[in-house]
Amino acid sequence: MGINAAELAAGINTVWVLLCAALVFFMEAGFAFLEAGFIRAKNSMNIVMKVFTDCTVGMLSYWALGFAVMYGLDRAGLFGGSGFFLNGSFAHLHLGIPLYAYWLFQAAFAVAMASIVSGAVAERMKFAPYLVFTALAAGLIYPLAGHWVWGGGWLGKLGMLDFAGSAVVHAVGGWSALAAVLVLGAREGKYNRDGSVNVLPAHNMHLAFLGTFILWFGWFGFNPGSSLSGLDLNIARIALTTNLAAATGGTMGMLCTKLKYGKVDPSMAMNGALAGLVAITAGCAYVSPPAAVITGAVAGVLVVLAVGFFDRIHADDPVGAIAVHGVNGTWGALAVGLFAEKGGLFYGGGWHLLGVQALGVLSVSLLAFAATGGIFYVLKKTVGIRVSAHEELEGLDINEHGIPAYAGLVAGPLGEIDVEEFSDSYVPEVLPRAAGR
Amino acid sequence: MGINAAELAAGINTVWVLLCAALVFFMEAGFAFLEAGFIRAKNSMNIVMKVFTDCTVGMLSYWALGFAVMYGLDRAGLFGGSGFFLNGSFAHLHLGIPLYAYWLFQAAFAVAMASIVSGAVAERMKFAPYLVFTALAAGLIYPLAGHWVWGGGWLGKLGMLDFAGSAVVHAVGGWSALAAVLVLGAREGKYNRDGSVNVLPAHNMHLAFLGTFILWFGWFGFNPGSSLSGLDLNIARIALTTNLAAATGGTMGMLCTKLKYGKVDPSMAMNGALAGLVAITAGCAYVSPPAAVITGAVAGVLVVLAVGFFDRIHADDPVGAIAVHGVNGTWGALAVGLFAEKGGLFYGGGWHLLGVQALGVLSVSLLAFAATGGIFYVLKKTVGIRVSAHEELEGLDINEHGIPAYAGLVAGPLGEIDVEEFSDSYVPEVLPRAAGR
Amino acid sequence: MGINAAELAAGINTVWVLLCAALVFFMEAGFAFLEAGFIRAKNSMNIVMKVFTDCTVGMLSYWALGFAVMYGLDRAGLFGGSGFFLNGSFAHLHLGIPLYAYWLFQAAFAVAMASIVSGAVAERMKFAPYLVFTALAAGLIYPLAGHWVWGGGWLGKLGMLDFAGSAVVHAVGGWSALAAVLVLGAREGKYNRDGSVNVLPAHNMHLAFLGTFILWFGWFGFNPGSSLSGLDLNIARIALTTNLAAATGGTMGMLCTKLKYGKVDPSMAMNGALAGLVAITAGCAYVSPPAAVITGAVAGVLVVLAVGFFDRIHADDPVGAIAVHGVNGTWGALAVGLFAEKGGLFYGGGWHLLGVQALGVLSVSLLAFAATGGIFYVLKKTVGIRVSAHEELEGLDINEHGIPAYAGLVAGPLGEIDVEEFSDSYVPEVLPRAAGR
Repeated sequence: MGINAAELAAGINTVWVLLCAALVFFMEAGFAFLEAGFIRAKNSMNIVMKVFTDCTVGMLSYWALGFAVMYGLDRAGLFGGSGFFLNGSFAHLHLGIPLYAYWLFQAAFAVAMASIVSGAVAERMKFAPYLVFTALAAGLIYPLAGHWVWGGGWLGKLGMLDFAGSAVVHAVGGWSALAAVLVLGAREGKYNRDGSVNVLPAHNMHLAFLGTFILWFGWFGFNPGSSLSGLDLNIARIALTTNLAAATGGTMGMLCTKLKYGKVDPSMAMNGALAGLVAITAGCAYVSPPAAVITGAVAGVLVVLAVGFFDRIHADDPVGAIAVHGVNGTWGALAVGLFAEKGGLFYGGGWHLLGVQALGVLSVSLLAFAATGGIFYVLKKTVGIRVSAHEELEGLDINEHGIPAYAGLVAGPLGEIDVEEFSDSYVPEVLPRAAGR
Repeated sequence: MGINAAELAAGINTVWVLLCAALVFFMEAGFAFLEAGFIRAKNSMNIVMKVFTDCTVGMLSYWALGFAVMYGLDRAGLFGGSGFFLNGSFAHLHLGIPLYAYWLFQAAFAVAMASIVSGAVAERMKFAPYLVFTALAAGLIYPLAGHWVWGGGWLGKLGMLDFAGSAVVHAVGGWSALAAVLVLGAREGKYNRDGSVNVLPAHNMHLAFLGTFILWFGWFGFNPGSSLSGLDLNIARIALTTNLAAATGGTMGMLCTKLKYGKVDPSMAMNGALAGLVAITAGCAYVSPPAAVITGAVAGVLVVLAVGFFDRIHADDPVGAIAVHGVNGTWGALAVGLFAEKGGLFYGGGWHLLGVQALGVLSVSLLAFAATGGIFYVLKKTVGIRVSAHEELEGLDINEHGIPAYAGLVAGPLGEIDVEEFSDSYVPEVLPRAAGR
Repeated sequence: MGINAAELAAGINTVWVLLCAALVFFMEAGFAFLEAGFIRAKNSMNIVMKVFTDCTVGMLSYWALGFAVMYGLDRAGLFGGSGFFLNGSFAHLHLGIPLYAYWLFQAAFAVAMASIVSGAVAERMKFAPYLVFTALAAGLIYPLAGHWVWGGGWLGKLGMLDFAGSAVVHAVGGWSALAAVLVLGAREGKYNRDGSVNVLPAHNMHLAFLGTFILWFGWFGFNPGSSLSGLDLNIARIALTTNLAAATGGTMGMLCTKLKYGKVDPSMAMNGALAGLVAITAGCAYVSPPAAVITGAVAGVLVVLAVGFFDRIHADDPVGAIAVHGVNGTWGALAVGLFAEKGGLFYGGGWHLLGVQALGVLSVSLLAFAATGGIFYVLKKTVGIRVSAHEELEGLDINEHGIPAYAGLVAGPLGEIDVEEFSDSYVPEVLPRAAGR
């Protein structure tokens, strides 16, 4: 057959990127169920709906606007300005794969950033303003940060290294979440007048674990797929360092809570593993396995300390998104400056790279914090971003969507109650055919 | 090493098809949990068992019979007649991948078609006759439709375009579901004497969302994998159009319910996205991204209207399978006639392709409706297809399988009741070791 | 472009193995939810935590120790002795893919073996000693068996055929589980003084089905990926035989329980499919599709009989791990001696291969039984392996982790109770911020 090496290479790379893009997309299910499991049942469907909105509205926003801002022709190192709706030339990207495959992989990253924020604002934020936020997050905030580092912007030109986005995706998502939480305020009943903290318990830990397993699974696409080439055998190292950092982060999360509380805390086992994944995302392609273990171990400790810290300052983050993504995305970007085999401080590279990494992660974090804070402030002063105290007590699922996440789960002799009778009691007239068909 | 380009190409294509086949197989979990989540707890395990039966009995039927009927040597353009149990030559398929890889990918499609029907007949159909149906659906009904379009049959010869099966899989599944529902009748308590409709609420929306995310994820195998080649770079376009149609369908499902009911309905967000995926399945390889957006947007509106319509005519479909797969599989097949870059009406191709598409989708839909209706009618008149009213009230899980889907979930101080005591009350003697070990 | 065939081949193989490794890793979620679903809610989070510990602590143990014991330079055919922490040369493996990709794929196997045991000891084993066990299982037990067959050890030299590990992974895991159960003892309330058996019901069958679907999905990486090459077109046969054995096993599990109990038992449908997957794992690359169907059919019957047998001898295995993995891993290894197209008894190969297979599976099974039994015995006599009867009654989730798996799921008018009020009643002071943030 007449096929040549270039065509074979293009095929391998396209297959690789498309399958990795599917894995990254599946991480949206991971975010949805991790967040839903960690909060109370009465608000758990609303949070899944918000993540689902990232996949629908957010995806369309990245198609219409975001990709052009991130990868369009550079304007002064600050933003891209061509290729809206994927129209126009992207020849300047010199892609080894079809543009559409590249877009799909990037789009899955864009919606992930928005989904990080959704968890932090869970249990009290209105649905409609969140929809506005996700469109702007995937269309502007994330693309601006992405342009600066990956799209031909000023930080990339300075030599910042962020292989798969500890800074661009996770720090941006995490510090956006902090801004959102500060504008939105804490949940009713979370903090007492005396400053003490109430536990608003996770309603379904299996759902949270499902989310965690899916996220870890998807990260095998998120990090190695960022090579954009199946012929770059460094993908093996990337997958290995990713996995070791997750394992170490989870181990440290368990160890820290055992020492701190006397019991191994499942939520910190999960957040520890996720913190390790977030932290290694910048350096996965540049560091050795032992350095990945250290990066993950530090992340597993940082996340436990950070969750406590943000609770003490009453930044109410129901799922720990700020600690996992903000703190450890930042740590991960700095860790590259320490452990990169080329240019890392501990490898004789001196302070330059570490300085660039610090400047870079600080810059994109400030951008994210300011932009999200501004958007939330404007939304608060206009349409409003918070449900009423009564709606918050009743739960967002009923008030925003007209149905509960669970119906008829009381375990009687037949494992449930008579649903017909039960249903009359709560199905609102406005929704004659909501949910059940 | 002595490997040549042809061997490399075969490897790339085989890896691609096998991994996509795994994704399509995983969609069975998506169907199972989407359907289980949308119905009442007391019947939710039975529906998962039916989908699981598609994967076991249905898979074996497609191995023994279905693949030969679909891809065996053509008989008069109507059916294949060779290669039962994968014996004999399939040289006439001129495959670029091993036959076994091709079979696996096709088998995952065959069982998906049966799983579409399982949701529509949920909450009142007996298990045993469903087992007979799934064997015939995967062994005859789907393979006949598949032969007509893909297997060398008369519709393929007419030039019908159905890239991954909006017609062959989804319209066939959806209109089979309508026939099944009409023969089976509505659930007890669904419709009142005055014709008004009761809501039989979804028992677990997280289960339904899990199913939806898995289906969307699996569609990245379903559509791009249908290229059967990782060297066909059009797979990038296919994945992109698939994703955009899903995003737009979900967006429109949310928008329509907001306008119609005043609240954003989660079940319609899900069904909107699925409708978009179903509709783009025929044209994903032939249309532009904007055309995919339009196809998905129309699907998102159609599904909302169709769910209402089928309820008005008292065709009781607990999960909306007829609206999602039947209506939008049909729309998707027609959309190719409008938007195909080669031959589409809006691209100067005139009416010919649209006519062929209409004839094709009508033909396979009638085949499916008649065959499934006939099978259900015969089963009804012989073994019976419906559980008794008393069994339906108690629930199919207890009556068909001896155990409930959930046990001991009442949240007491320890998050559950004393199961030992509780268990005595319902575990039937006939099943000394059912479920719990 | 200057890329050559060898580089293209390396890329294809690395992409293949990394994506299959991700699928095998995802099987950990399958084990976690299969096991959690089959047991009572009050212990269900603890079992997921144990599987999660396999992924964290177990993974690190395989990195530091296990891989060197399994694939380091051979010492007398018994164990490997070089390459701890992945340091040193593995040139003797003559790999066609990067070492790190090979490690990742193997590591996912190592933790799977430990996860098999976790289910059998569910509902009464302490968390801390399990953590010690998983470190030793992934660091020593599995690697020793693996070295004997795959790592250059004496069984491999004798010509034992175990393509993806019916013996090395599943028999080793299953017979380890038996030893663990015998040392640990049965759950409180499982067996009465008169020897009769109580059912301790599965608390969430949807969770169990989710686990089963994920395991089946992941097996498409587990078996075909063991080729370590995407250019070996036999991967198509491997995927096909794997799928057919699962389908047949599930079908027989349903049929046997229908005949035995009068109802189709969902847990046996799942365990039948898993038994088929376990049994075909050794022979998937060597046998024909019909032989795979026979292998799976026998497995589906064996698992039903075996579950009954182990209950009669009061070996309390809450999830059926011994029957699925021990019995059918053994059957699968023997089946190769019967059905292998090269050397199988039924293919004119005589008794030699069957003898080698029997010796091999017996040897690794004895190793696993003795090693795990010894470890559990020492742990029992030192730190203790079993929670107190009172903790067992209350549940391990509260006692080991301070929180329940589910909170606030009582379905009131709004689908849940007031969680604030509810939470006060049980959240232990020692865990001010456990689980809920």
